[in-house]
Amino acid sequence: MNRHALQHIQKSNYAYALNSKTLRLRLRTAKGDLKRVEVIYADKFDMECSQVKEMHKILTDQLFDYYEADISVDQNRYVYYFKLYSTDEVVYFGENGIEKSLDSKTLHYSVFQFPFLHESEVHHIPEWSKTAVFYQIFVERFFDGDPSNNPKNLSQWGTRPSPHSYYGGDLRGIIKKLDYLQDLGINALYLTPIFAANTNHKYDTKDYLQIDPEFGTEEDLKELVKKAHEKGIRIVLDAVFNHCGYYFEPFQDVLRKGKASKYFNWFYIEGDEVCQNPANYLRFAFSNKMPKLNTHNEQVQAYLLKVATYWIETCDIDGWRLDVSDEVDHAFWRKFREVVKKCKKDAIIIGENWHDANAWLQGDQYDGVMNYALTKACLDFFAYNTIQADTFAYTLSNVLMRNTKQANDCMLNLLDSHDTARILTLCKQRKEKVKAAITFLMTFVGMPCTYYGTEIGMEGEHDPDCRRTFEWDSKKWDEDFYTYYKKIIRIRKQHKALTEGRVKFTYDPELFVMERIGEEEKIIVVMNNTDKIQSYLLTAKQAKELLTDTVITTKNNQLIEKIETNGIKLYSIKNTCN
Amino acid sequence: MNRHALQHIQKSNYAYALNSKTLRLRLRTAKGDLKRVEVIYADKFDMECSQVKEMHKILTDQLFDYYEADISVDQNRYVYYFKLYSTDEVVYFGENGIEKSLDSKTLHYSVFQFPFLHESEVHHIPEWSKTAVFYQIFVERFFDGDPSNNPKNLSQWGTRPSPHSYYGGDLRGIIKKLDYLQDLGINALYLTPIFAANTNHKYDTKDYLQIDPEFGTEEDLKELVKKAHEKGIRIVLDAVFNHCGYYFEPFQDVLRKGKASKYFNWFYIEGDEVCQNPANYLRFAFSNKMPKLNTHNEQVQAYLLKVATYWIETCDIDGWRLDVSDEVDHAFWRKFREVVKKCKKDAIIIGENWHDANAWLQGDQYDGVMNYALTKACLDFFAYNTIQADTFAYTLSNVLMRNTKQANDCMLNLLDSHDTARILTLCKQRKEKVKAAITFLMTFVGMPCTYYGTEIGMEGEHDPDCRRTFEWDSKKWDEDFYTYYKKIIRIRKQHKALTEGRVKFTYDPELFVMERIGEEEKIIVVMNNTDKIQSYLLTAKQAKELLTDTVITTKNNQLIEKIETNGIKLYSIKNTCN
Repeated sequence: MNRHALQHIQKSNYAYALNSKTLRLRLRTAKGDLKRVEVIYADKFDMECSQVKEMHKILTDQLFDYYEADISVDQNRYVYYFKLYSTDEVVYFGENGIEKSLDSKTLHYSVFQFPFLHESEVHHIPEWSKTAVFYQIFVERFFDGDPSNNPKNLSQWGTRPSPHSYYGGDLRGIIKKLDYLQDLGINALYLTPIFAANTNHKYDTKDYLQIDPEFGTEEDLKELVKKAHEKGIRIVLDAVFNHCGYYFEPFQDVLRKGKASKYFNWFYIEGDEVCQNPANYLRFAFSNKMPKLNTHNEQVQAYLLKVATYWIETCDIDGWRLDVSDEVDHAFWRKFREVVKKCKKDAIIIGENWHDANAWLQGDQYDGVMNYALTKACLDFFAYNTIQADTFAYTLSNVLMRNTKQANDCMLNLLDSHDTARILTLCKQRKEKVKAAITFLMTFVGMPCTYYGTEIGMEGEHDPDCRRTFEWDSKKWDEDFYTYYKKIIRIRKQHKALTEGRVKFTYDPELFVMERIGEEEKIIVVMNNTDKIQSYLLTAKQAKELLTDTVITTKNNQLIEKIETNGIKLYSIKNTCN
Repeated sequence: MNRHALQHIQKSNYAYALNSKTLRLRLRTAKGDLKRVEVIYADKFDMECSQVKEMHKILTDQLFDYYEADISVDQNRYVYYFKLYSTDEVVYFGENGIEKSLDSKTLHYSVFQFPFLHESEVHHIPEWSKTAVFYQIFVERFFDGDPSNNPKNLSQWGTRPSPHSYYGGDLRGIIKKLDYLQDLGINALYLTPIFAANTNHKYDTKDYLQIDPEFGTEEDLKELVKKAHEKGIRIVLDAVFNHCGYYFEPFQDVLRKGKASKYFNWFYIEGDEVCQNPANYLRFAFSNKMPKLNTHNEQVQAYLLKVATYWIETCDIDGWRLDVSDEVDHAFWRKFREVVKKCKKDAIIIGENWHDANAWLQGDQYDGVMNYALTKACLDFFAYNTIQADTFAYTLSNVLMRNTKQANDCMLNLLDSHDTARILTLCKQRKEKVKAAITFLMTFVGMPCTYYGTEIGMEGEHDPDCRRTFEWDSKKWDEDFYTYYKKIIRIRKQHKALTEGRVKFTYDPELFVMERIGEEEKIIVVMNNTDKIQSYLLTAKQAKELLTDTVITTKNNQLIEKIETNGIKLYSIKNTCN
């Protein structure tokens, strides 16, 4: 048995409350190493009365197999250990590692524990997140709905943006395009910042309690949210709480008064007054225009928490995306979650953590994060073609195993954003690759998010080029591509298996095969990312290919399907047809 | 290279703030697998300006080697990855696993991150914990200093206790024995509960704001703390916040009024009123007399937090040991830490978690826990002799690697307690084994804790037998044992290397060898737990054996020392004599 590979971490994504009565356990083993795994569990104070449950191998990555089981004990106090069966031995695995036999005298030392499962510690996610299809809008570039609020020196809509261009996009623009968005099929919007600021991107907030005049008014936001809600679309705003803008009044006050300012401790300043060159204060990246906020300061906390609830209370927004959230302290996010969820129970909280976010995804801070780990896997597979289908599936499995089910369900899955080059550009204009990537996104665990314009084939290199204006002349769209996009969104929303089904991969280098196994239906996603025709053995009495709406009836329960290069198949199999 | 064995976990005991300017990194590899490890690190926003640092193999357990390095970047925002050198390859290890080469295009995805090191998130431990030598007193059995407060039906001091016997021990008894404790050399007391309750152990609190009348008064506690402080002894009390006693007034109110009681939600009750048989409320273990407190309830929180600060403010106690702390929710302990540390900055918080307590030891809840993982290792080695010296050292290494340095420094290291059989009994009366065990405890990382009476050779099976009355007739003591005990405590306190030195083991099955390497002195602890004479090669120009106060001068820097069965040597080597 490969002892080095064994992993179980107490009170982590390896052992967490799925709900108030269920503990989900994971165990990692070396790939292919074990024949069988059982978990033996009991109440912490009644270890003699133990139960046994088979664990199931659910996913595999390049090195490891992952087993899962859900267990439950009456009083919510758990002790447990694993029984591992390999071809040549049967051993026990507990807190002190492998033991060949268990001594009842010291068993209480050898077990793992989940000492008490608290209802208050269960990570509850918004019910609507399970069927959310997100769309990210960079507000200044979507649609100019109200020319009267445009800044001077406007660039011509459609021209290539520079870092400092303005085009006039605003909230009224989004309101006017709600029909378009509803028709596209999305049901949640994430807007980049809309509060008063001095740039086109508004990540340098001047006033967190005022809509940027170039974007509209508080009334506009109210109207946007109200009309969006009427169409079943939720609105998530961008909370830029790691740093403010240079013109944020408290920072201006400190600029004027130095240490005498009552806002001095709102920032991290070395010395008695602000110096610009070299900067003597903490900033976002190295931008002097974005002073870092001291979220450990109680007044800063009070201010930002007021901001967080103000926009929910006054405009009924549905949650927050948190900018540079990984650089803000955990204690602040815990308070943030508390006040936000108290204010609106099903508000969503999505962090911008590009890296492992486990420490923030325990249920007491965010619900999910922008899933850049998934982005990378998609780019490697669809855009760069640096990995084959089996490695893609291994990586996806690994990414899923990094977090709890709840966090996975609330991941904002994205191919691109205002902070990356656009997917079509990264795919070197090959729309068939983007089609495959978006099909994957719409059939995977988590909340798919479309960066505005991807659906009409917009391109763009890294910022500022990825922030071009939306092309509203539909004659210039790739109609086929756009129609496909709408169809795949519709399929996502129509099939519960795609949002709630468990995931199963076939780890094949030549063909990507992912099953989403729901209660009534199984959907098999098959994609050929190679330059050769591949074949897929469809096993079912009857299936329906969802993209072509074709019913397939097999002989002897099997049929070999040819999958062309860049071919995509979505086989729906009713469980009665298995 | 053994890829399965590699482990690094972001924002965990593998990557944590040692102080406001230092990030400590750990990497786990298969034992003996690598020749060399480097960490490459940079500011998150300036990855091109990276630095390289050699990591050092610091400990080894049965399967793994552990490497450490401390790194620092100016703006506290870290990205890093590891460069691994084995005999046959050099590879990079980052968030996405092993990579043979790094592509600058995707490097920002491949790195590990510690996005921001917040001063507010550094785990600060009380300075005094570093030199603390604890002594645990089961108050009812230590000394009867005030017969006037004794309960009726007192058992005769010295007789064997039953679960419900009373002997009259009290706070005045401890005050009267402070000279004894000071002479013994301890400098911190942990008292089992002293608040009003209905048992001899007082774990069934009736009133958290009143000293149990059988133990004395608030004035007695004040006097105890004051006099203890005068002798340099700190006082830590037992906070029984997981559950209360049956006679706690809020529970009594619920018993009387059912759901109409304003305290109904202080507990976890199914139905509208309390039922005893079968019990319809959550309890400690299965004891109807100990209803579990709902620490998620804000009133309960307010009450218990008031209790926590009340005794610090009024009596100046130095911290809390938290009973059954693993069954209380994290949010409560975070609030608890906040108010306790605000009230007294260097108060200590020690949880009673018998198992992996990582989730509680991130710096925002406890400082340390009762180190039962260490207890088990000591029992296996010294008492049961089920493991050899190398396995003991491997286990100790593993236990150290489970937590951060700060948590390790605040571990309450114990051989026994009121919840276990006594060490001398577990060692089958072999005092030489207890001597070795206590010597180990006094020379290891963390805060050694003596359960009252161990120093005079008290015995006892599991509760209630381990709670016998202290034998104050010194003629009945084993003087040699007691003298040894005092000496080893004195040595602990006199040598900074024993509290601050880094740990290094020689993993030898026949001889336990542990070095504590301080800035000015190295102490080598050598113990022979076998039944054969062993030899130890002492390497130094000159050493002093601390137990015998013997100066040893070597020829050619080496000397072979014979170590008898149960022999213990503490070689002190000044760094100038190396």
